[in-house]
Amino acid sequence: MFTHPKTGMTVLSEGECWELLGGAHVARLAAVVGDELEVFPINVVVDGHTVVFRTAEGTKLAAATMARQVVIEADDHDRGTGLAWSVVLKGVAERVDDFNRIYQLEELALVPWDERPKQWFVQVTPRQISGRRFAAAV
Amino acid sequence: MFTHPKTGMTVLSEGECWELLGGAHVARLAAVVGDELEVFPINVVVDGHTVVFRTAEGTKLAAATMARQVVIEADDHDRGTGLAWSVVLKGVAERVDDFNRIYQLEELALVPWDERPKQWFVQVTPRQISGRRFAAAV
Repeated sequence: MFTHPKTGMTVLSEGECWELLGGAHVARLAAVVGDELEVFPINVVVDGHTVVFRTAEGTKLAAATMARQVVIEADDHDRGTGLAWSVVLKGVAERVDDFNRIYQLEELALVPWDERPKQWFVQVTPRQISGRRFAAAV
Repeated sequence: MFTHPKTGMTVLSEGECWELLGGAHVARLAAVVGDELEVFPINVVVDGHTVVFRTAEGTKLAAATMARQVVIEADDHDRGTGLAWSVVLKGVAERVDDFNRIYQLEELALVPWDERPKQWFVQVTPRQISGRRFAAAV
């Protein structure tokens, strides 16, 4: 953890980033597919040092697994303390096809953001995770 | 407004999208700069049919104004009704350099997401806005 003396912005450690992301539930997935940049809300769980979300066939699945890189962002703020945080994870997304792995993932508390049937798990392996905490005026 | 009979997902009208985005305050900016996809939390206000946010010199400003296209995403959910919404706006971001325009924007209730000094306004002109409302299990 490092707090910038001028801006008051705190750079979070990798451990803090994972902890915040693990508690976030709701996050956003950004991915470039072809020429198009897409952003979707997703429900996430942290499994080891990977992020898993569930999705049906469709744009979100295609975007995640076709993209060369994806970004997952989660943030929140506490009106009580006036502090906000944001964690950004950059990595590669893969559809989980192995049945044993799917059974394991079913055990995770993976609550879908919407209640439509979600047939696929997508697992994002990070190449970079970063986060910051700062005073929020919201 | 159109509700999909199978999924229960409601496609929002453009008017509803602007209304939700206008009340959101907190949103995320996604932009591709060079080979890198970046996502930042931002505080937004809707000004006409454009979105304005304030930022200091730095990565966020560079990413927004150098990118060919940007995406702004806002979402929220209501634990009471169990309904969530997400609005995605795709467009082009430009730094506001005209002083009269800057004075106008200063009048907007533009609360910064963090309290560091923010010297620049960035205005995003949309080429597309879309949104949906759906049952959320969070």
